[in-house]
Amino acid sequence: MQAERPWADLRINSERLNNRIHQLARIGALEGGGVCRLALSDEDRKARDLVCHWMKQLGLTVSIDRIGNVTGLRKGKTDSPPVMTGSHIDTVATGGPYDGNLGVLAGLEVIETLNEAGIETIHPLAVGYFTNEEGARFAPDMMGSGVHQGALDLDQMLAVRGIDGKTVGQELERIGYAGEQPVGQFYARRYIELHIEQGPVLEQRDIQIGAVTGVQGISWTEYSIRGISNHAGTTPMELRHDAGYVAAQIVVEARRLARDMGQGQVATVGQVEMIPNLVNVIAREARLTVDLRNMDEQRLQLAEKRLGRFIDEIATAEQVEISQRSLARFQPVHFDPAMIELVDSTAARLGLSCLKMPSGAGHDAQMFAPNCPTSMIFVPSQGGISHNIHEFTATHQIAAGANVLLQTLLHCATQEPD
Amino acid sequence: MQAERPWADLRINSERLNNRIHQLARIGALEGGGVCRLALSDEDRKARDLVCHWMKQLGLTVSIDRIGNVTGLRKGKTDSPPVMTGSHIDTVATGGPYDGNLGVLAGLEVIETLNEAGIETIHPLAVGYFTNEEGARFAPDMMGSGVHQGALDLDQMLAVRGIDGKTVGQELERIGYAGEQPVGQFYARRYIELHIEQGPVLEQRDIQIGAVTGVQGISWTEYSIRGISNHAGTTPMELRHDAGYVAAQIVVEARRLARDMGQGQVATVGQVEMIPNLVNVIAREARLTVDLRNMDEQRLQLAEKRLGRFIDEIATAEQVEISQRSLARFQPVHFDPAMIELVDSTAARLGLSCLKMPSGAGHDAQMFAPNCPTSMIFVPSQGGISHNIHEFTATHQIAAGANVLLQTLLHCATQEPD
Repeated sequence: MQAERPWADLRINSERLNNRIHQLARIGALEGGGVCRLALSDEDRKARDLVCHWMKQLGLTVSIDRIGNVTGLRKGKTDSPPVMTGSHIDTVATGGPYDGNLGVLAGLEVIETLNEAGIETIHPLAVGYFTNEEGARFAPDMMGSGVHQGALDLDQMLAVRGIDGKTVGQELERIGYAGEQPVGQFYARRYIELHIEQGPVLEQRDIQIGAVTGVQGISWTEYSIRGISNHAGTTPMELRHDAGYVAAQIVVEARRLARDMGQGQVATVGQVEMIPNLVNVIAREARLTVDLRNMDEQRLQLAEKRLGRFIDEIATAEQVEISQRSLARFQPVHFDPAMIELVDSTAARLGLSCLKMPSGAGHDAQMFAPNCPTSMIFVPSQGGISHNIHEFTATHQIAAGANVLLQTLLHCATQEPD
Repeated sequence: MQAERPWADLRINSERLNNRIHQLARIGALEGGGVCRLALSDEDRKARDLVCHWMKQLGLTVSIDRIGNVTGLRKGKTDSPPVMTGSHIDTVATGGPYDGNLGVLAGLEVIETLNEAGIETIHPLAVGYFTNEEGARFAPDMMGSGVHQGALDLDQMLAVRGIDGKTVGQELERIGYAGEQPVGQFYARRYIELHIEQGPVLEQRDIQIGAVTGVQGISWTEYSIRGISNHAGTTPMELRHDAGYVAAQIVVEARRLARDMGQGQVATVGQVEMIPNLVNVIAREARLTVDLRNMDEQRLQLAEKRLGRFIDEIATAEQVEISQRSLARFQPVHFDPAMIELVDSTAARLGLSCLKMPSGAGHDAQMFAPNCPTSMIFVPSQGGISHNIHEFTATHQIAAGANVLLQTLLHCATQEPD
């Protein structure tokens, strides 16, 4: 066995990876902790420059495509499509040092580890960072990887105007990252991405590695309820048409629905507004959003239907009007079963506990999933917190994830061509 | 019998009353309907001047007290304390023509009817309008009647600063209604006030007159819920500490509580706010208010206790912190049983349907209730709507109420001294 995997005991250098993470986190660092590095800002440019510098130091061939995605390529024995890893280095306005950045820098650490060990792989290896994964400045999110994998149109995306009125194209030119590499033509042999979980599951269950099975389907709906405003003191309970009460029933039902359905169904009402929002006036209007997610499209549709039926019933019962508007609807993304198994078995081989789990958040990996065998590796997020200056993952947890990344990339890159 | 009540067939002049209502409503009239006549504003001054003018035309002796309450007195055969009626002529910012004004102008119409018929009563009659009943510009509401009846301190009230920074005292001086009559010394023999219901009960039950049994006790509490903000996609249902969900449970429980308790218990959540109020973020904080009302102090306390128990339970279940703050707490006011009966029997004698009912809103009458036998007469509000430019009560409904007022005032004012 060992002869087949001469690199089985190879491990990344955790301190070196950690140093890169903290060096990168200084660009756009916020007072009091955290990072603000919105896509295509000056801070993003500085961070891009630093990562390009590291890529070149490691001997990678750097190319920049027309939407600003940057790829560092390490030659293999063959000229086949590369086994790829990567993520993003843009952040939300109050982000942390790990979201995205970890995946890119762990990729570089894998390269440096291979360089040091003098290992040549059969297939090339690529480390990429993709433009505007967060969508915090320009919508949609996962823009760079979407264009990269042909799911989004280049020209449309270049024309997208950000929250500050500037377009993606203008800003790419301004910061010098409007590359020449064509997009929608680069296909990876395999894609695997290391990312922090951004949720509490691994920490709560004390598990070191998540083998990500896919990305949940998302259904966002806004409900607007129109009742009748009236005096809180003088209106008997049975004569009310209370928009706020109906909104609250939906919130409570969303929880019940998710608990009843189980199997990973989640439901969240994060936004509720009442009009006129006064202590002693029955609300004449209420608006709320419902966020439903499931890995299974059929069950996600079932959740939507059940909620819809409930809403029809309560509208009739309280005699209010309820209108609805879809804010977002994405089908689930399923990662490749063999890649998921590879992450799981690699973690086991390294003596790490591992859980097969879906991702509740979107990631660049999902853009690769339709085109090549794809999976992700999750490491725990302290308190489940991310998109927050308190985002934190401990060094030993990062090392565990980066070693799984190293070993899975090596496995994929040393396989004979299919 | 007829000999004992030579005035039993006397009726008010509905057209004359209606004319005064519409004349007064032109002062502070809003484009598109409704009235804005905030207490002690220029519009209030003009309306006061007009009502004073009418009082003097009717031969009433006008006096103004130190908080600006205006009383018009009609002499009786004896010098005893007057049988009093009245209400207020200030409105909320988007008020209607009837709330308050009806009670004052119906009082004047009663006087004019008696003048025309040449009826002299044993006890004097008084018609008053009280300063700042609405509390829309200066808090608290029912300020003038409260000072008038010794429940509120004159100097404290004169120092109250309004939403525009000016004090009650300054504004009384400015509009020329800082009178010299001492306050807290004027006691009425009886007090009876005609008012629109401001609720839907009479209209819904197709009843012409409400004999008001008292004013509900009010309990206003603000609840602040502190949970944990987290990602809507990545946080399993069983690991959530969702402040918004807990707020919604309270809203739903408030309704259930009121329906379960019945017997006039009402409960309203008119105000809900969530933080950060985003589609895909579990709320870390939620604030809401609960408005509980009941005519029975014991049952109001029971409602408070039941809600308190529920809140303790759900705080534990969801592991969130809930703090509470009392915003207002008033015990119920009970009107005089004999006066309630008098309204009821008078309505019956006039061939009008009548319902004994509590008031869900506060009124000047409640300030008189501790000091003299008091009740109120309600007439229907179309759609239960008030504090709204669409406030409406039909002329025949107003006439019915004003005739009950005429006959009850006559009854009280022609009784031999106790």
